[in-house]
Amino acid sequence: MTLQQDLGSAPCMAKQRLRVWLRLLKATKLVEATIRENLRVEFDSTLPRFDVLAALYRFDDGLKMSELSAALRVSNGNVTGIVERLVADGLVLRVPVAGDKRATLVRLSNKGKERFDRMAAAHAGWVDAILEDLSDEHCEQAIGLLETVGRSPKLTARVEAND
Amino acid sequence: MTLQQDLGSAPCMAKQRLRVWLRLLKATKLVEATIRENLRVEFDSTLPRFDVLAALYRFDDGLKMSELSAALRVSNGNVTGIVERLVADGLVLRVPVAGDKRATLVRLSNKGKERFDRMAAAHAGWVDAILEDLSDEHCEQAIGLLETVGRSPKLTARVEAND
Repeated sequence: MTLQQDLGSAPCMAKQRLRVWLRLLKATKLVEATIRENLRVEFDSTLPRFDVLAALYRFDDGLKMSELSAALRVSNGNVTGIVERLVADGLVLRVPVAGDKRATLVRLSNKGKERFDRMAAAHAGWVDAILEDLSDEHCEQAIGLLETVGRSPKLTARVEAND
Repeated sequence: MTLQQDLGSAPCMAKQRLRVWLRLLKATKLVEATIRENLRVEFDSTLPRFDVLAALYRFDDGLKMSELSAALRVSNGNVTGIVERLVADGLVLRVPVAGDKRATLVRLSNKGKERFDRMAAAHAGWVDAILEDLSDEHCEQAIGLLETVGRSPKLTARVEAND
């Protein structure tokens, strides 16, 4: 968003809060773009693909496609297409559901788990490096501020609590 | 991203920074989703459309399509399609470039300017309401922290400085 012009007429605190939001958005986009780029360069992968692997990693027994889509509802990828590619690459398996012939679950293969272990470790390292100028105290401050934002009753959206 | 599992093995500060990043991402997605929803309900509009109007609002003389795309490089909308809809709705005009028969600029019509004025004011109000629990001091803290993140030499991406 390029909203300089918003800042013109708003009262002082509103202006300040808008500034916070624009910085928040910008910082998030910068970090996310860097992660996308690193996934591409180091793993020949994408963020939606990483998100699907991350979601499946949390459920050892696998998920129905509908459950997977629900778990990913904030990442707008084409889940079906991504899963098909992951199956073709041997990272994800389709497994039948006992007692329900029409239903299948998707879950990580051993190869998928190993791949995601490596990607997750690399991801944690990238984030650590990007945020290296944040001390422990800064991190506490940031978490407190972000929790305040996340608790706002004015938020109409909900994102799954998974961190 | 659902990266609980990342937190398992990383050293303490890396874990803490990953937590900051996951909260940052979540807060941004929550606010952005709320803004999307409000744009839809109150203006029958979308975020990519809002971003195009915002970019054009900053350039009274208009922009070439290539300049507009460059200005929007972090929003992944289909710029051409959005502009076509905005032209059809009378919010954006195509104007010829003096001395270059093949080039056209796009710029906001008066109706487009008035519409964006209303949208931007509403947007500032939504953000003010969502962040109402942040005091002036909180805002200063947040801006400081976000600037620290934005200055990281580990960021490979660049987002235009427009706030």
